[in-house]
Amino acid sequence: MMKTSLSLLLVLVAVSFTFGKYTPKTGKRIPKTLSRGWGDQLLWAQTYEEGLYWARSQNKPLMVLFHLEDCPHCLALKKVFSGDDDIQRTLDEDFVVLNLVYETTDKHLSPDGQYVPRIIFVDPTMTVRADITGRYGNRMYAYEPNDIKLLASNMQLAKKLLKSEL
Amino acid sequence: MMKTSLSLLLVLVAVSFTFGKYTPKTGKRIPKTLSRGWGDQLLWAQTYEEGLYWARSQNKPLMVLFHLEDCPHCLALKKVFSGDDDIQRTLDEDFVVLNLVYETTDKHLSPDGQYVPRIIFVDPTMTVRADITGRYGNRMYAYEPNDIKLLASNMQLAKKLLKSEL
Repeated sequence: MMKTSLSLLLVLVAVSFTFGKYTPKTGKRIPKTLSRGWGDQLLWAQTYEEGLYWARSQNKPLMVLFHLEDCPHCLALKKVFSGDDDIQRTLDEDFVVLNLVYETTDKHLSPDGQYVPRIIFVDPTMTVRADITGRYGNRMYAYEPNDIKLLASNMQLAKKLLKSEL
Repeated sequence: MMKTSLSLLLVLVAVSFTFGKYTPKTGKRIPKTLSRGWGDQLLWAQTYEEGLYWARSQNKPLMVLFHLEDCPHCLALKKVFSGDDDIQRTLDEDFVVLNLVYETTDKHLSPDGQYVPRIIFVDPTMTVRADITGRYGNRMYAYEPNDIKLLASNMQLAKKLLKSEL
């Protein structure tokens, strides 16, 4: 009798957990994270406005990373980027971070066009650091997996903040 | 001997899994999802630009939900909103969805001011549906948990698309 009650209780609990949980016709989905795999331990801003706000209020440079989820160059860079402890630690401690799969309306974020992957630094004075570039003349803000050391040294450049006029 | 090799292999595997995984000084964090708990099965846009793009290309209305993670009214609404199968199904099938914890620069999204929670519908013609309101005169786009039926009927209003002039 005791056993039957327990089973019944378990069924009820299971039903109440299932009830009210919408499942798409195509099957359950895995929720997307704000990190999109570029560093699950980082506190990613959701939008450019949010990133700028944090950069100003924390007086830290903002790194904006444009990418696409189905671009092989992006996936190759993501693997190295997310697995590099120094990059991840420096970003966590000294930067505000934002990754975007959709362009903003701000033309300053595409100094030489819209392409992916593309990494742009923004000073907390809200100045886009167009001077901090990678090694490719035709895509100045692109990085390949082999350029991870250059990216790390560019991050050090970005940390030398421009002086605010205020 | 065989056992020792196996143990050594296991240690090596464990080390290689740990290596290259940055952990913040304050301890491991749980990555934030784009849903932020408002419906883990929905495909949330990340930014307003992205939401508008999807609304136009899929010819579906966009729902923009402004909230904060530490606001009690938002948390109460979130509980009802995320647990309501009809709301979730309709949003998944007929809407583009976006939730924001930070305001955009677009004034059309705050017809009577910036407050949370606030729900604004946008037609795929990119017209903000300022005519679709809740029941509170001083905060026309706010909804309480008890207003979930009104929200559902407002979603039906939003689904009657405005005709495009194009």
